[in-house]
Amino acid sequence: MIEEVNELFKSKSFNKLHDYLEELNSADIPLLFDNLEEDECLVVYRLLSKTKAAEVFTYMESDMQEKLINALTDKELKAVIDELFMDDTVDLIEEMPSNVVKRILKTVNVKDRKVINELLNYPEDSAGSIMTTEFVDLKEKMTVEQAIEKIKKIGDDKESIYTCYVLDDTRELVGVVSLRDIILSKPGTSLKELIVQNPVTATTLEDQEDVAKKFEKYDVTAIPVVDKENRLVGIITIDDAIDVLQEEVKEDFSKMAALTPAEDSYFRTSVFAHAKNRILWLLLLMLSSMITGTIITNYENAFASVPILVAFIPMLMDTGGNCGSQTSTLIIRGLAKDEIRIKDFLRAWWKEARVAILVGFGLVVANTIRIMIQYNNLELATVVGITLMGVVFLSKSLGCILPIAAKKIKLDPAIMAAPIISTIVDTCAVLLFFNVALLIMDI
Amino acid sequence: MIEEVNELFKSKSFNKLHDYLEELNSADIPLLFDNLEEDECLVVYRLLSKTKAAEVFTYMESDMQEKLINALTDKELKAVIDELFMDDTVDLIEEMPSNVVKRILKTVNVKDRKVINELLNYPEDSAGSIMTTEFVDLKEKMTVEQAIEKIKKIGDDKESIYTCYVLDDTRELVGVVSLRDIILSKPGTSLKELIVQNPVTATTLEDQEDVAKKFEKYDVTAIPVVDKENRLVGIITIDDAIDVLQEEVKEDFSKMAALTPAEDSYFRTSVFAHAKNRILWLLLLMLSSMITGTIITNYENAFASVPILVAFIPMLMDTGGNCGSQTSTLIIRGLAKDEIRIKDFLRAWWKEARVAILVGFGLVVANTIRIMIQYNNLELATVVGITLMGVVFLSKSLGCILPIAAKKIKLDPAIMAAPIISTIVDTCAVLLFFNVALLIMDI
Repeated sequence: MIEEVNELFKSKSFNKLHDYLEELNSADIPLLFDNLEEDECLVVYRLLSKTKAAEVFTYMESDMQEKLINALTDKELKAVIDELFMDDTVDLIEEMPSNVVKRILKTVNVKDRKVINELLNYPEDSAGSIMTTEFVDLKEKMTVEQAIEKIKKIGDDKESIYTCYVLDDTRELVGVVSLRDIILSKPGTSLKELIVQNPVTATTLEDQEDVAKKFEKYDVTAIPVVDKENRLVGIITIDDAIDVLQEEVKEDFSKMAALTPAEDSYFRTSVFAHAKNRILWLLLLMLSSMITGTIITNYENAFASVPILVAFIPMLMDTGGNCGSQTSTLIIRGLAKDEIRIKDFLRAWWKEARVAILVGFGLVVANTIRIMIQYNNLELATVVGITLMGVVFLSKSLGCILPIAAKKIKLDPAIMAAPIISTIVDTCAVLLFFNVALLIMDI
Repeated sequence: MIEEVNELFKSKSFNKLHDYLEELNSADIPLLFDNLEEDECLVVYRLLSKTKAAEVFTYMESDMQEKLINALTDKELKAVIDELFMDDTVDLIEEMPSNVVKRILKTVNVKDRKVINELLNYPEDSAGSIMTTEFVDLKEKMTVEQAIEKIKKIGDDKESIYTCYVLDDTRELVGVVSLRDIILSKPGTSLKELIVQNPVTATTLEDQEDVAKKFEKYDVTAIPVVDKENRLVGIITIDDAIDVLQEEVKEDFSKMAALTPAEDSYFRTSVFAHAKNRILWLLLLMLSSMITGTIITNYENAFASVPILVAFIPMLMDTGGNCGSQTSTLIIRGLAKDEIRIKDFLRAWWKEARVAILVGFGLVVANTIRIMIQYNNLELATVVGITLMGVVFLSKSLGCILPIAAKKIKLDPAIMAAPIISTIVDTCAVLLFFNVALLIMDI
């Protein structure tokens, strides 16, 4: 792809290049720009048809969008913005610096500017902030022919025409009709017969993640957004819902690895931003694990007289950490997917407790065999075995309880993941280990 | 919802119950069944209209589907199966025990049985295994009126009519036409003018994840699947793509927490299965961390003369583990999202190296201040500081290199996550720590 474009570009075959570009998928064209100089990009971009240009624009990264806007004339910019759907325009405005925003708003007519301002006013992460106002609205008393006629008339500017919204005279949502049903119905059928009442809806202030989950659960491709009076104000389409779901997953992965989620992709995030996203958690966890260290010094006498004890600290810490991380990951994911609810708390813990006993038993057996072979010391095997069992049980319990408790007090369960659980389990493991040793061994 | 149904059920108001159920979303009805006895479920299920019954069926968990099939008569079963789309029927057959499969196949006509067998033959996780064969095919020479006429005729049995596929006489895919363009075009327009050539396609044997990622990248709602001769054999719809993406995320979370991914949801997985999914990794990691322990015993003299050294082992191990887990999570996610490619190897490492220096510096400063306050021992601060810097650098390097190396040798990068990296870093941390101590301190 890149070679063809370069060749056509260098031979100045702009007509051929235009034809070639029109055949490409709009999502692939921004990749070309990465391999061209800035002024070359502008030439290529100007070769695109109006519709294609707007489509390509929505697939660009925001820094490339900004560069392009700065290079376009006011008239060219207006042509692009006019073709964008409302939600894409709002996304763009949110990403751009204020001087660019001013230029964008200048291209927009007064009515659209009002809508944009309303959309910008919805809280971040609310359904209102990701919806678009361009939907097809129909009336209950229409026949399918009248409906198709209206769709033909207004459909061009609508983000989706496959689900239409039936409104009453006060613009309250009566129900939805799919274009599928409209097309496949006998002539003369009234929309009344086709309406699906009680469709899945969202409210403007609902959390965007909750809305995105509805797409997954109900297998729909668009969800109407209503205000407090049940008036239809916008729709959310599935492509935006997928973005929300993916963003959410990215945040969970980050939090579970003790990272502040980055806004950009890996390479687009600067070294300094990467360091900033990591250092706070690392400092916090480092200070916490110093507590474990300080506790160890209290048992100086124990490991001075039985130095071999120190050799088991890493194994106990690691196994505790891994057991806790397994459980907390399952619980955090279960909570995120609504498979586990706060009230399932005891049921989940009881499950983990039994798993801990099974798993702990397996680990203790393996560990005892190894200690008997390497050291032939039953007392040592007993001390390590009891501690190991305790650590497994404790880490699985904490891995289950802490994320659910976090959710209960309205914190994100994802922060109660491996790193924090490990740090807590470490302290407990060391305390338990030396106390069992002092009790059983003759120190 | 549950109360209403229970009440209507107890008062035997079956007509009212029927009306109530028809208004509910099909995805919500299986939840009702969880709260009803098995024979009550059957009564409720029989109240549903034919279409609704089939829809509800697709939202059920497989154990509930099995129970229901066993309770239905052959005729009722046929009615349900007839309404299912081909991909849902194939999914069902893959989940059911052989006696149930036999009953299902008996209800299917010879032609459909042949299609089902073909679909069952595609390898697991291939595009062919998740596609459906029910799509709308059109001819290039049709006008929009002829196209609509054909859609009206055959659309009822098709999973989606919003994207139609234009085939030539050998059933090779010429391009796609959206119903949107068909509806919004002037009367008499030829499909030739509306065709999008070179649409995003998949091949039957392509990995289902790669196909699912195309939905995200190209914002499409259906992708045609072609065989080696470019003949259209099926389509994949966005709802199935979302399921694949979610399944993939679930697997990544599991692998990154040293878990074998479970097939079922948390509570549906038995205690024994949970234990089985966890014990192997735990054993492996436990045995590896014993190496660290054995190494420690080699430095018995060092911590016998300077016992305070032992107090820093947890902090160094934890910080190394956390640093490595931050990096490996970012790299694994970057690889999964194609933001990082194997050839970006050096670029990624160079980024991590610089981040490591920044982060390491911050941690060393905090750590030095703390040691000076608590122990007022510059020598100790120096030993711990040098080790800490080394551990941060090493863990960030390994966290970057190992996942990319895994991908290079065709392993899943997700296994090179926190648990394995921690175990490797632990050993290095202990070795480095005692050697630096022996070098600097007078032991």
